[in-house]
Amino acid sequence: MIFPCTTPCRSPRRPGMANGMLGRRGHPQLNRNGELKHLLTVEGLPRAVLMHILDTATQFVSVNDADVKKVPLLRGKSVFNLFFENSTRTRTTFEIAAARLSADVLNLNINASSTSKGETLLDTIGNLSAMHADLFVVRHAQSGAPYLIAEHCAPHVHVINAGDGRHAHPTQGLLDMYTIRHHKGEFQNLTVAIVGDILHSRVARSDIHALTTLGVPEVRAIGPRTLLPAGLEQLGVRVFHDMDEGLRDVDVIIMLRLQNERMNGALLPSASEYFKYYGLTPERLAFAKPDAIVMHPGPMNRGVEIDSAVADGPQSVILEQVSFGIAVRMAAMSIVAANNG
Amino acid sequence: MIFPCTTPCRSPRRPGMANGMLGRRGHPQLNRNGELKHLLTVEGLPRAVLMHILDTATQFVSVNDADVKKVPLLRGKSVFNLFFENSTRTRTTFEIAAARLSADVLNLNINASSTSKGETLLDTIGNLSAMHADLFVVRHAQSGAPYLIAEHCAPHVHVINAGDGRHAHPTQGLLDMYTIRHHKGEFQNLTVAIVGDILHSRVARSDIHALTTLGVPEVRAIGPRTLLPAGLEQLGVRVFHDMDEGLRDVDVIIMLRLQNERMNGALLPSASEYFKYYGLTPERLAFAKPDAIVMHPGPMNRGVEIDSAVADGPQSVILEQVSFGIAVRMAAMSIVAANNG
Amino acid sequence: MIFPCTTPCRSPRRPGMANGMLGRRGHPQLNRNGELKHLLTVEGLPRAVLMHILDTATQFVSVNDADVKKVPLLRGKSVFNLFFENSTRTRTTFEIAAARLSADVLNLNINASSTSKGETLLDTIGNLSAMHADLFVVRHAQSGAPYLIAEHCAPHVHVINAGDGRHAHPTQGLLDMYTIRHHKGEFQNLTVAIVGDILHSRVARSDIHALTTLGVPEVRAIGPRTLLPAGLEQLGVRVFHDMDEGLRDVDVIIMLRLQNERMNGALLPSASEYFKYYGLTPERLAFAKPDAIVMHPGPMNRGVEIDSAVADGPQSVILEQVSFGIAVRMAAMSIVAANNG
Repeated sequence: MIFPCTTPCRSPRRPGMANGMLGRRGHPQLNRNGELKHLLTVEGLPRAVLMHILDTATQFVSVNDADVKKVPLLRGKSVFNLFFENSTRTRTTFEIAAARLSADVLNLNINASSTSKGETLLDTIGNLSAMHADLFVVRHAQSGAPYLIAEHCAPHVHVINAGDGRHAHPTQGLLDMYTIRHHKGEFQNLTVAIVGDILHSRVARSDIHALTTLGVPEVRAIGPRTLLPAGLEQLGVRVFHDMDEGLRDVDVIIMLRLQNERMNGALLPSASEYFKYYGLTPERLAFAKPDAIVMHPGPMNRGVEIDSAVADGPQSVILEQVSFGIAVRMAAMSIVAANNG
Repeated sequence: MIFPCTTPCRSPRRPGMANGMLGRRGHPQLNRNGELKHLLTVEGLPRAVLMHILDTATQFVSVNDADVKKVPLLRGKSVFNLFFENSTRTRTTFEIAAARLSADVLNLNINASSTSKGETLLDTIGNLSAMHADLFVVRHAQSGAPYLIAEHCAPHVHVINAGDGRHAHPTQGLLDMYTIRHHKGEFQNLTVAIVGDILHSRVARSDIHALTTLGVPEVRAIGPRTLLPAGLEQLGVRVFHDMDEGLRDVDVIIMLRLQNERMNGALLPSASEYFKYYGLTPERLAFAKPDAIVMHPGPMNRGVEIDSAVADGPQSVILEQVSFGIAVRMAAMSIVAANNG
Repeated sequence: MIFPCTTPCRSPRRPGMANGMLGRRGHPQLNRNGELKHLLTVEGLPRAVLMHILDTATQFVSVNDADVKKVPLLRGKSVFNLFFENSTRTRTTFEIAAARLSADVLNLNINASSTSKGETLLDTIGNLSAMHADLFVVRHAQSGAPYLIAEHCAPHVHVINAGDGRHAHPTQGLLDMYTIRHHKGEFQNLTVAIVGDILHSRVARSDIHALTTLGVPEVRAIGPRTLLPAGLEQLGVRVFHDMDEGLRDVDVIIMLRLQNERMNGALLPSASEYFKYYGLTPERLAFAKPDAIVMHPGPMNRGVEIDSAVADGPQSVILEQVSFGIAVRMAAMSIVAANNG
C-alpha cells in the first residue's frame, strides 16, 4: 500500500459531501492572518480567498498570451510534482505553470520510487522537505493524503492538492469558476448544472463547494441514482434524474467524464445506454438557455457523455478551461508561496 | 491504437518514395510568405529553405562550443516533446537543443498518458495547444501523424517531425547535409552512397530528398533487393546490389542501421550473412575516394552493418553528426518559431 | 547486459576494501595540477581535496537557505543524469543541485534507451559527449562503470559517481563528513561507528575512506560476521560483533540500511532477529556518548535497523544529512566543472 497511515490518519477515508475534512479541525489551509498557505480543497475557503485567486489569475492570463510567457515570481524556488497516481495531463499543467513562474520543477513519480523500498510516505515527505522544497503539488489516489502531507511537512513548504481520491480537485474547481466568471460576469444570477457521475467525482465536489461559496443561487446535479451521492440536498443542490428537465434554462452545463471502469459494471448497463439518457446532444443542449456554455474537465469520452457536435460546437468552452487552468494554477502557486506560517 | 484517425487521415499510410505526402495539397510546411512554419519533411522544400537552415545552424555550432551554451531566442516559449514512440536518444537531442535556446521544455510520453484513457490524438493536441504551447516536437510510429497534428493544431503552434514511421526524419536528413557540407564544401560535385535497409528507413528517404534538392549529381543506393524500395530510379537514384561496385569513387558513405527485427526474418538470412555482403569494412572502404567520409545515424550495430575499425577510424564523422545535430535542431526550432501564419 | 565491456574493463568486478580501483593506475580523478576533475571515489583523494569540497559546500548551504536558491555558476552547462539503475531519490538530489547552479539538466534512464537497441555503453557515452555534455552524473549497478566512462569520455566532460555497485558512493560519503564536521567541529578526536550491512554497502566504503583520510582516530564497524567484509582491519577499522560494546563512548553512529533482499536469505534469519541484535534503540544509544549523533543514508527501514524513537529523536541528524547533501553535491559539481584537463 502506498499510503500506510502508520501515523493516525485524521482525515476520513471516504469523506461525505456534507461532512468533509475541514469541520473538525479548523483551517488547515489558512495561516494566522487568514491567508492561503496550502490549497487542499475549496470546501470552507472564504469567498474572498476564492475571489483573490480568480483575480490574480487574470494577470496570468495576460502572461500566457504574451510573447515571452515568463515572470520571475518563483525564481529560485523548488516545486516538486509528487504524483503518487499517474496523470500526465494534470502534471503537465502544473509543470508548465511552475516553469512560467520561473520555478525549478522536479517531477517525481512516487510509485516507482522510495515507497517501493518500504519507506513511509512521511519519511519521503521529510526527505523532500529537507532538500529545501518550497511547494509540493500532490496527486494521490487516496482521499486526504495532501492533508496528511500538509500537516507533517516543514513549515516552509506549501502544498497544493492536484486531486486526491474522490475528495477534491481544487484547482479544477477554481478554473471552472474562472471560466464561468469570464463568460457570465457575475455568479449571483446563475443556474449551473453538473451532469454525470457525481458520486465518484472530485471535480464535482470542488465545483459544488465553489459555486455555493461564490453565491450561485441554483446548483443542479443531474444523473442516474447510482451515480449521485447521498446528501446533495443538504449542500443546497437540486437533484434531477431526467436530463431534459435538469437542463431547462440553465446558464452553465458542467459535464463530467464517465470513467471507463463504470461503463460495464454494476452501476451502469453500458456506455450507449448511458449516452441515451445522459449524453449531451445538440437536442438536449437546446433545453438550456441559448447562451449557455458547455464545460468538461477532460479527457472527454466522445459519444459517451458528450456528442462531438456539442464538444466542438459554438457553446463549448472546453479548451478555454484548459487555457485558464494554467493561469489559475500560476495564481494558486504564487499566492500560497507568498504566505508563510 | 494510438492514432485512431477518426478524422479522415489525408496522408497515405505508406507513402511511396516518388509519391509523397506533399504533392496533393501544396505546402503544409510553408506560410504564405514561403517561410518554414512547420518542419515535417525535407521532400518538396525549396533549396533556399534548406540552405537557410544549414546557414543558421552554423551560428549554433558556435553557441555549442562556447563556455555558456545558451541563447535567449526561445525564452518564455513552451516546447513540448510529444513522443508517441519511445526514443530517448532523439528526445534528448531536441531537449538539449530547446534548453540551449532558453525554452521551457516538457517531455510527454503519450503512450502512458491520455490516449490510454481513450482520448483521441486530436483532443490531446487541442489540449496541449490550449496550454499555449509554441512548438510540438513529434515522434510517432505511424507515417503522417505529424501532418495531421500540423493541420489541426492552433495557428500559433509549430510542429517539427522527429521521425514518423517509415516516412521522414527531416532533422536527421538536414544534419547529414550539414555534415557533408562541412567536410566537402559544395554539393555540386559529389557522389553519395546510402547503404543498407533503405526500404524501412525514414532517414534514407529524408537524405535522398535533401541530396537531390541540394544538387548532388549522383546519389547511389546500395543493398540487397529485399531492402530496397521500388521507385528509387524515378527519384534519380542509381541502384547497386554489389557493394564494392557501389562504393567505387564515392565522396560520402551513409550507412544505415539494420533493425534487429530484420536480421533473422524473411528478408535476411542472418546478421553475419548481411555483414559479409554489406558490412562496411576497411577493405570495402578502400573502394571509395581516399578522402571519403563515413556517416551513420546511430545507434550502430557494430559488426553488423559497420566494422569497428571503420566506425572509430579516421574517415568516420559519426560523432560530428551528433554534434551538428544539436545545432541543426536549434536552427530548425528557432526558424519555425519565428514564422507565423 | 547493460555493460558489455567489449572494451577491456580495467576495473575489477568486485573491488575488495583494501585493494581498490585506484592503486593500479594513478589518479583518474585528478588533473595534472592535482585538482579534482572527476569524483569517482573518496578512496585515495588527498585530505586537502576533501576539505576543499566541504568548505565549498558551506557556501551552498547558505544558497539553499536563501529566498532565491539559485547561483549562476553552471549557467549554460549541460548536466546529464545517467541512471543505469533506478534511484529517484538520488537522482532528485543531483537534479535539484544542478538546477540551483543554473545548469540545464537532462535525465536519462538508460535501461529504457539505446542499450536496449544493442548500442554499447561507450557508444552511448560518445554520443552524449558529442552533444557537448559538461557533466555526467552516473549511477550504475556494476562497480567500476563510472571509471570506464571517465576514461573514455571526451576531455571536456566531467564524471560524478552517484553510486556504482558495492564500490563507492562518494557524495554520500562527503555529505556524511559534512554533517559530522558541522556537529563535531574537528575529526581528530572522534570515535565513529558504522553499523550494519557493511559488506554490501558502498556508503560504508566511502565513509571509511573519508573518515580515515580526514584523521578520525577510531573507526568502528559493527555487524554480524555474515555482513562484514574481510580486510576491514587492514583499513584501520576496529570490528565489533556485539553492538553494545561497539557503541560504547562513540561520538557518531552511522546506521546502514538493511536491504530487503538480505532479510530472509542465507545471511540473516529474519528482520526481527536482526533488530534484536543490531537495531538502534534508545537503550542501545545510551551506550554512546550523551551528545552522540545518529546518521542514516536513507531510506530507513524503521523497526529493522533503527527504532522510530531514535530516528525521530533529538540525537538524529538524518534530515540534516539530506539538506547538507544538496550543498555537497552543488560543491562537487561546481568544483569538477571548473577543473579541466
